[in-house]
Amino acid sequence: MNDIKVFDCTIRDGGLVNNFHFTDDFVRGVYNTCVEAGIDYMEIGKNNSPSLMSTEEFGAWNFCKEEDIRRIVGSNDTGLKIAVMSDIGRTVNSELLPKKDSVVDMIRIATYIHQIDKAIELATQAHEKGYETTINIMAVAKVEEKELDEALEKLSHTVVDVIYIADTFGSYYPKQIAKLAQKYTKVASKVNKQIGIHAHNNIQLAFANTIESKNNGVTFLDVTISGLGRGAGNCAMELLIGYLNNPKYNLTPVLEFIEKFIVPLEKELDWGYSIPYMVAGQLVQHPRNAMKARDEKDTKYFDFYKKSLEEK
Amino acid sequence: MNDIKVFDCTIRDGGLVNNFHFTDDFVRGVYNTCVEAGIDYMEIGKNNSPSLMSTEEFGAWNFCKEEDIRRIVGSNDTGLKIAVMSDIGRTVNSELLPKKDSVVDMIRIATYIHQIDKAIELATQAHEKGYETTINIMAVAKVEEKELDEALEKLSHTVVDVIYIADTFGSYYPKQIAKLAQKYTKVASKVNKQIGIHAHNNIQLAFANTIESKNNGVTFLDVTISGLGRGAGNCAMELLIGYLNNPKYNLTPVLEFIEKFIVPLEKELDWGYSIPYMVAGQLVQHPRNAMKARDEKDTKYFDFYKKSLEEK
Repeated sequence: MNDIKVFDCTIRDGGLVNNFHFTDDFVRGVYNTCVEAGIDYMEIGKNNSPSLMSTEEFGAWNFCKEEDIRRIVGSNDTGLKIAVMSDIGRTVNSELLPKKDSVVDMIRIATYIHQIDKAIELATQAHEKGYETTINIMAVAKVEEKELDEALEKLSHTVVDVIYIADTFGSYYPKQIAKLAQKYTKVASKVNKQIGIHAHNNIQLAFANTIESKNNGVTFLDVTISGLGRGAGNCAMELLIGYLNNPKYNLTPVLEFIEKFIVPLEKELDWGYSIPYMVAGQLVQHPRNAMKARDEKDTKYFDFYKKSLEEK
Repeated sequence: MNDIKVFDCTIRDGGLVNNFHFTDDFVRGVYNTCVEAGIDYMEIGKNNSPSLMSTEEFGAWNFCKEEDIRRIVGSNDTGLKIAVMSDIGRTVNSELLPKKDSVVDMIRIATYIHQIDKAIELATQAHEKGYETTINIMAVAKVEEKELDEALEKLSHTVVDVIYIADTFGSYYPKQIAKLAQKYTKVASKVNKQIGIHAHNNIQLAFANTIESKNNGVTFLDVTISGLGRGAGNCAMELLIGYLNNPKYNLTPVLEFIEKFIVPLEKELDWGYSIPYMVAGQLVQHPRNAMKARDEKDTKYFDFYKKSLEEK
């Protein structure tokens, strides 16, 4: 139980809903909430290079410049660790400061399985600069078992600290997640690495799958406040804190944040479980069509299902 | 798998949201959907006595007069069985027709544990009149283990066909539900009875707990379309059908119903997961305060939590 790390990705996964255009007030609110709630890590955004992506289209938290982070967290003299996510092909390694010059503690690398070598290279560089690292293998539901086994074996020989199960399609049922978690933890336990879970709520199982992962040895548990995140969203921080029932974590600041920041945000942004995401999850499809349907407030669910079946 | 019964309670549990004031069109829509989707049972309402409850305050489906049911289902020449729920103290036994004169197949008796003898009496009478019967023990989370064991032992010696776990407070986690399901099925397996689960979604686990129950020998699985039901609502039919992945069940008519009937209803009625229900679930409290907060569109979640803690 003491190994459990509650990992907040409200700004990073939430940024996928609004292209990272959060106000400083909002980001500071998340930071303060995480500190007061006893959360272990906060992922404040992505460290994509401004030389590779539009700084007009995307807000500051898509780039996570050191000065932007420090504007929110100062020198972060708290128990909360700060993480950023690296997208393969969108970062420039020379832009990553040595850890001693940064308030960032951890670099998380999101990768598809075919890019795993590139991900390992990035993780190794980040490790050499002094950071904790994770590699998050996305879209596992569409990976052959043999290929996954080989990737895990390869990762076991690297410096990466945490290997993540990312349920990109929100398609897993608890028994499947248990099996995956057992597979990952078997590899990790031999080499002193930790396993993480990043669940999505397409079929209303993000929370249940996070619990199930924990029951099978997974220790890094991703959450976002009110499940804020792309599409059907994520495992809600407030649900997980209630479940863990550990005096280390405190629900009150989370509810205060929701009252102050999420209630108004819900009137502007759309995220969370709905029928199109359910269909995508059941059919193990990328949520992009569902996101389009939601954007267009299209409730022709029968047509949506028929078209989704044809794509399968 | 062949033993699994998907049990729809859209009108009955949904009736708790609008005092059973559904149009015939809506009820007929649910009926046709259940038939086309291959659902096993449909609970069309309660059979409370018009002599005991106001027929002005409550709609027809709080009383389920034979002529009202027949107006919707005719003589029900389908594979779908019809059920009604009896509330102890609100039914008049002489009003229950012999099965040969009714299209109803099953009487479900909802009981608190201290009324269990009365529930057994009602079930016995319904059985003698020719009906299938269930007894649903509500509020189990607040019952002492010894008292529950005695009640289950008592039920095992009765004519009742199905014993239900009713997660009235929506407070159970999957491991707890698994333990309960094992306890119930251990009793049931000796005497050829079935076990059912009626889950609520207060902490987003209605679906997960229904799956977990099934994995532990529970065969009667309660659902409502889009989770329609009191407070945080129920396990959604569309999620369970997707999970069961059995050609016996068909998702298409359910999505058609949602598109036609639920999308407009969501603009009129409020149900489903939200923070006040989460707080009630986490604290194992009746959702009545949460329902009041939702009715009043009160989003002062911090105050709500503080007050709920004081009530504990």
